[in-house]
Amino acid sequence: MTRHPHPLLYLDLLRSALREDLGGSGDLTTDAIVPEGEEATAELVSRGSGRIAGIRIALDTLRLLDPQLDTEARVDDGSDVESGTTVARLSGQARAILSGERVALNLLGRLSGIATAARDAAAEAAKHGAVIAGTRKTTPGLRLLERYALRVGGATDHRFGLDDAVLIKDNHVAFAGGLRQAIERAQAGVGHMVKIEAEVDSLAQLEEALELGVDLVLLDNMSLDELRQAVRINDGRATLEASGGIALANIAEIAATGVNVLSIGGLTHSVTALDVALDFPGESKK
Amino acid sequence: MTRHPHPLLYLDLLRSALREDLGGSGDLTTDAIVPEGEEATAELVSRGSGRIAGIRIALDTLRLLDPQLDTEARVDDGSDVESGTTVARLSGQARAILSGERVALNLLGRLSGIATAARDAAAEAAKHGAVIAGTRKTTPGLRLLERYALRVGGATDHRFGLDDAVLIKDNHVAFAGGLRQAIERAQAGVGHMVKIEAEVDSLAQLEEALELGVDLVLLDNMSLDELRQAVRINDGRATLEASGGIALANIAEIAATGVNVLSIGGLTHSVTALDVALDFPGESKK
Amino acid sequence: MTRHPHPLLYLDLLRSALREDLGGSGDLTTDAIVPEGEEATAELVSRGSGRIAGIRIALDTLRLLDPQLDTEARVDDGSDVESGTTVARLSGQARAILSGERVALNLLGRLSGIATAARDAAAEAAKHGAVIAGTRKTTPGLRLLERYALRVGGATDHRFGLDDAVLIKDNHVAFAGGLRQAIERAQAGVGHMVKIEAEVDSLAQLEEALELGVDLVLLDNMSLDELRQAVRINDGRATLEASGGIALANIAEIAATGVNVLSIGGLTHSVTALDVALDFPGESKK
Amino acid sequence: MTRHPHPLLYLDLLRSALREDLGGSGDLTTDAIVPEGEEATAELVSRGSGRIAGIRIALDTLRLLDPQLDTEARVDDGSDVESGTTVARLSGQARAILSGERVALNLLGRLSGIATAARDAAAEAAKHGAVIAGTRKTTPGLRLLERYALRVGGATDHRFGLDDAVLIKDNHVAFAGGLRQAIERAQAGVGHMVKIEAEVDSLAQLEEALELGVDLVLLDNMSLDELRQAVRINDGRATLEASGGIALANIAEIAATGVNVLSIGGLTHSVTALDVALDFPGESKK
Amino acid sequence: MTRHPHPLLYLDLLRSALREDLGGSGDLTTDAIVPEGEEATAELVSRGSGRIAGIRIALDTLRLLDPQLDTEARVDDGSDVESGTTVARLSGQARAILSGERVALNLLGRLSGIATAARDAAAEAAKHGAVIAGTRKTTPGLRLLERYALRVGGATDHRFGLDDAVLIKDNHVAFAGGLRQAIERAQAGVGHMVKIEAEVDSLAQLEEALELGVDLVLLDNMSLDELRQAVRINDGRATLEASGGIALANIAEIAATGVNVLSIGGLTHSVTALDVALDFPGESKK
Amino acid sequence: MTRHPHPLLYLDLLRSALREDLGGSGDLTTDAIVPEGEEATAELVSRGSGRIAGIRIALDTLRLLDPQLDTEARVDDGSDVESGTTVARLSGQARAILSGERVALNLLGRLSGIATAARDAAAEAAKHGAVIAGTRKTTPGLRLLERYALRVGGATDHRFGLDDAVLIKDNHVAFAGGLRQAIERAQAGVGHMVKIEAEVDSLAQLEEALELGVDLVLLDNMSLDELRQAVRINDGRATLEASGGIALANIAEIAATGVNVLSIGGLTHSVTALDVALDFPGESKK
Repeated sequence: MTRHPHPLLYLDLLRSALREDLGGSGDLTTDAIVPEGEEATAELVSRGSGRIAGIRIALDTLRLLDPQLDTEARVDDGSDVESGTTVARLSGQARAILSGERVALNLLGRLSGIATAARDAAAEAAKHGAVIAGTRKTTPGLRLLERYALRVGGATDHRFGLDDAVLIKDNHVAFAGGLRQAIERAQAGVGHMVKIEAEVDSLAQLEEALELGVDLVLLDNMSLDELRQAVRINDGRATLEASGGIALANIAEIAATGVNVLSIGGLTHSVTALDVALDFPGESKK
Repeated sequence: MTRHPHPLLYLDLLRSALREDLGGSGDLTTDAIVPEGEEATAELVSRGSGRIAGIRIALDTLRLLDPQLDTEARVDDGSDVESGTTVARLSGQARAILSGERVALNLLGRLSGIATAARDAAAEAAKHGAVIAGTRKTTPGLRLLERYALRVGGATDHRFGLDDAVLIKDNHVAFAGGLRQAIERAQAGVGHMVKIEAEVDSLAQLEEALELGVDLVLLDNMSLDELRQAVRINDGRATLEASGGIALANIAEIAATGVNVLSIGGLTHSVTALDVALDFPGESKK
Repeated sequence: MTRHPHPLLYLDLLRSALREDLGGSGDLTTDAIVPEGEEATAELVSRGSGRIAGIRIALDTLRLLDPQLDTEARVDDGSDVESGTTVARLSGQARAILSGERVALNLLGRLSGIATAARDAAAEAAKHGAVIAGTRKTTPGLRLLERYALRVGGATDHRFGLDDAVLIKDNHVAFAGGLRQAIERAQAGVGHMVKIEAEVDSLAQLEEALELGVDLVLLDNMSLDELRQAVRINDGRATLEASGGIALANIAEIAATGVNVLSIGGLTHSVTALDVALDFPGESKK
Repeated sequence: MTRHPHPLLYLDLLRSALREDLGGSGDLTTDAIVPEGEEATAELVSRGSGRIAGIRIALDTLRLLDPQLDTEARVDDGSDVESGTTVARLSGQARAILSGERVALNLLGRLSGIATAARDAAAEAAKHGAVIAGTRKTTPGLRLLERYALRVGGATDHRFGLDDAVLIKDNHVAFAGGLRQAIERAQAGVGHMVKIEAEVDSLAQLEEALELGVDLVLLDNMSLDELRQAVRINDGRATLEASGGIALANIAEIAATGVNVLSIGGLTHSVTALDVALDFPGESKK
Repeated sequence: MTRHPHPLLYLDLLRSALREDLGGSGDLTTDAIVPEGEEATAELVSRGSGRIAGIRIALDTLRLLDPQLDTEARVDDGSDVESGTTVARLSGQARAILSGERVALNLLGRLSGIATAARDAAAEAAKHGAVIAGTRKTTPGLRLLERYALRVGGATDHRFGLDDAVLIKDNHVAFAGGLRQAIERAQAGVGHMVKIEAEVDSLAQLEEALELGVDLVLLDNMSLDELRQAVRINDGRATLEASGGIALANIAEIAATGVNVLSIGGLTHSVTALDVALDFPGESKK
Repeated sequence: MTRHPHPLLYLDLLRSALREDLGGSGDLTTDAIVPEGEEATAELVSRGSGRIAGIRIALDTLRLLDPQLDTEARVDDGSDVESGTTVARLSGQARAILSGERVALNLLGRLSGIATAARDAAAEAAKHGAVIAGTRKTTPGLRLLERYALRVGGATDHRFGLDDAVLIKDNHVAFAGGLRQAIERAQAGVGHMVKIEAEVDSLAQLEEALELGVDLVLLDNMSLDELRQAVRINDGRATLEASGGIALANIAEIAATGVNVLSIGGLTHSVTALDVALDFPGESKK
């Protein structure tokens, strides 16, 4: 079971999102039309097929507007659903449900879209024993949730931020005056609990990095042939990560080169949301 | 020129986004490798073709890390660029630029992706005198910026949130016990400065809504034929908005029915980011 | 029933208000004198006559200090009470009640004062079918609550802030170089969900504004005679709002001119609070 | 010169107040009509007579929207002005000035209204050597500024909050089981830097409080005759504060009894704002 | 019983402390190893001897991660314990307990360390009827809690911050141009609820301060002999506070001079934490 | 040069610390005594010998009260100073300097105290090629700064929080049902950028951990003899960290066993602050 973030780490985000939508004076439409205290039962229903991620987050969103909301997940995060599947059922204040609907769906749709794309990518990579990782190309403010969605999809975690691992990129190398200097400075400058990854764009750089004992090497935009050579040169020493220009169509062939990890920014920066709706099964629509 | 949000309304968001990426202890890699005080000149360069939105926002992001940053936009928001176009040039602390790069690019890429899609949609709609509007299906926390990007793309503003206009949807109608009741409650419950829009899913409902004097009618998932009839029935009384299942391919034909506005959630919920990079032209890459 | 703001939108304000009063180290007096855990029953009692607004807000304030507080409203917001009326009864931690008393009363007294003044104004206007609106001359930080109090008093909502409707004032006209230009720029610059109101100070301007199709016209400081002419000229086209120099004494005669709305800033900027006290009926005052 | 609060203590309040007014998407009117970058000179002008308080606070508000704003106070806080007096002059971005105008005026008008009322009350009290103090009946969130306005008006500071002095009120006495017990608990429970005031409603209680060595005694709702006796009994031992039912008309006679301090909640809970406007002298109004 | 701060005043601090430790993505170790939903019983156990302070605060910390946590304090704050004493027992989510353990212990250990040192100091001072006070040399952000720990140890409260009492120090005297001027300005500038203390470094200054009627005098770094003379000169007029170079070894002799208060910054700026651990008695350690 | 945290990561902490000290109404003493606008030059002077850390942080604190403050560091962080050394000189508003003095010194004294203790420990460890690391036993809210102070003292960084590395402790082992299960779950559950450390309390556990390929092993409370055996068994495979009961006196002999890292919680949980004062050299003291 994928680890779920603790609400302490995301409730403020949900609160802000609700306030962004409620604005200064709240939901004019619902407050004018739906009587206070009226109760209702609603369902979150998928309108497309994909992998669900974010059910608890969507329900927690609604619960901020109705703390007594009664909720029941019908499927778990990580389930692959078809259009028409009821994802969760909830009963409580009709006003709260209507006012929080859009924010809850915005989150659930986006996270499920990410999980769906990650699932498809991970399946391709798994054909050759490789794994998929996301990147830091996440939506500002949503990294915790988007990383969770990636894991639900079967992807693995890359470093969460700039503070929990070293990744030496070409610009760092340029400022250091060379790959060796950059790696040596990083090794001297960070603690013993931090892994060091170096981006290389040639096999010569790969050999230099391996010699200096980095933990991981990022092979940037290399051809399949270069990747295969890199795997041979590495000979199991460092974890090898391929990056750049990876899409669903070429994952399998890249994974087949023997690299360990394929990282794909598009899983979070270019998302197609899963269509999820909120229905009130008991209300006749006029 | 599209109105740009005031920094007072988005600087906290940029600050949070930087903190999300810097984490508890900051950019380990850059701090270990790049000397404090080293200065550099960098460029934001588009790696794809599209419409740019968010230059100032990206530069403001970097300025939070280096308040003395010297910046110069080379194109304005709203420019259509090709791959390779330098969007902006900036000089300042190398550490600040490297540490803020990802957050700045995440924002610029997303907003430009939205503007690009909106531009294409607006051009189609304009062929028949209609306009494109976004919806509330925006990324939690980013509505202000995503709405700006839509405007840069040529789309018009829908209501910003639940508090600045009434939109009576099918669920409201169900709770009110009918469209008439819903509209009358809204008219009685909100102030004289608020517009009222009603969603209808039949021409009968349209007639009822028009009779009650709503300002706008949302025609939900209607066929082209129904839309044409709706335009005739309306006869210029209310603003007509088509919604549901609208994509680039069918915008023109929907616009041709004579409706005024086409709203498309996918412009913000399913974005393809524009690829934008940050280069240091003066640094030899090793 | 007037719509009540959702607690999500005001609990932070109550929390800040309590912290402002409790300061760095809390209620020295109560903590030194009243034993921890002691329970008590108290009543909110009106010491003047007026219209009550803010009962739930006052009770929510106390509940932040004692989440188990047992509360019972004896009258509803909107009730007109005499001196001596018990407004609510509450039982819980004596310390919490004593420490939160002042903040709860500050809010309840102010909101009831606003509701009372609005009630009186609205009654005058209603004699001739007009309505009263508040303005943006509210207390910084309290707009949501003060607008609620106005509605409880029978006033209608004006725009909540600068973002939810257009109001073109004389200074905007000056910068635009004329009323026509100002209106045209506004019509071109905002979305289809936003109403546009123009302030005019002459009947000539009124005609120009009506011709351009504004939704509302604010008649600034006009004489009764001018107002009557304005109503004739308007002939039902736009909503007409009279503003400037309106007080209880002249509301009826202004309303009699036929304008639709009278807006009065003094309802929130110059408030006379209703005197409300917190009593402990079971405690002998020695 | 009255001490002015440091901006660190109030800038967040101004920022919140601006955001409350700007809402989710900012000043629609100004952004649509006034070109970005247009500069203007404006004046804060009093439209009534009274004592000015809050000039710097109003200007700091505008500066949050235009950090380069050039400002010049024409009078100092504490000046008594007539209608038509220019209070300050400011030059900068026209948009910033227009968008911040209402919040700046709301603050300046309220604070000046408080200072004006406090000035009048203090002048009455001074006839007999007494001073006026405000209370904790301030607007939630604005205590720092309202207390400043009271000082500008010539009133003295009461305790700022529950944490910086002890004030034993009737309810505390009831819970303690007697005045003596309440005072003794307070003396035992708070540090050596804290003053202790006890509210009494009889001369017998006054004698008991004085005997126990309290620093101040609040004489609650006593007749002039009782107040005179209280002054005799006290004989200079404690500071005597009269409270309850004090208004401009009876300040002098209460002060004449010889009490030291008269506290008046109405100075902050029932304010009549001073009318202050923002004019653009260089703009022809159409 | 020492007064305990209200949670409203410290829960945000606990929340921030947990977030500081949980970082962007939470407790990797616990989430990977301990199944969600697993329950456990744990104990807070002292590993040293000292006075316990902060039990409720430690338990409230854990409760932020598991709101259903069942807790039972085995001793009260203020108890003197030996190594091995179980301080509290708690049952709930194993993950929550493990993830919150370090923050809870960091607080409990620090506060108990302060209480222990204060207890020892207070006992020495009490031999001669004097009391110990802390200072403003507290840890930034923790003053409320550290002051509470001092009280638990038997120390008395000094002023909490710069806003609740006047303490005129040598630098103020220098800027005023003399002690007399400084005292007179303070007396004129602050309200009637504020005590005034003056620091003096000679007996001549003491006489001047007493003559001007200050409430307290801080005797800075005086010899025992000077302190004795100061007590004679004072003759009970002001509260006398000795300060500077006070440590456990010399408290008794300083107290014996007859001063009222001894203030010691080291009680909070140089703390030795009490060692407190969290054990799971029911779990076999492998 | 030790990497310094970016102000974006700590300015909010400084702001909160100032507000904690300034309270609701600011520095009563300074505001009453020192004229607004008066300028002064002050020095931060060490009153003890030790290693300085936090100069920029102390100066940034004061700059929050006077943005125009002119500052000049006389020594760099990491300098070893004697009593009497001027650490920095600053010129600006006298009020700002006096009001911010205590907070600035509280931070500078604490951080320098930590750096001093870390310096002494690191020197001992270096005799045998080992390094010192801090732990997560830091002051809630101050981890970023305290970790910086440790580095200034020559210690190395341990994991910053629960989110950036895995450390499997005895309680995790107990919940997993054994060390092997715990390590395997961690290896399966976290990403490829995260190091894994396991705590062991026997040599048998050490062998098991090494076999499973952990990156680091924490040797908990082992005797010198066990540590020596552990080093032999490890044979360079994992990084070995000794922990528990380490103090200045036994660092050298523990380091001599050949372990790589010695971690000491007391460096941050039981600090002796360096005495640093703020002097105004140009002011005659009376």
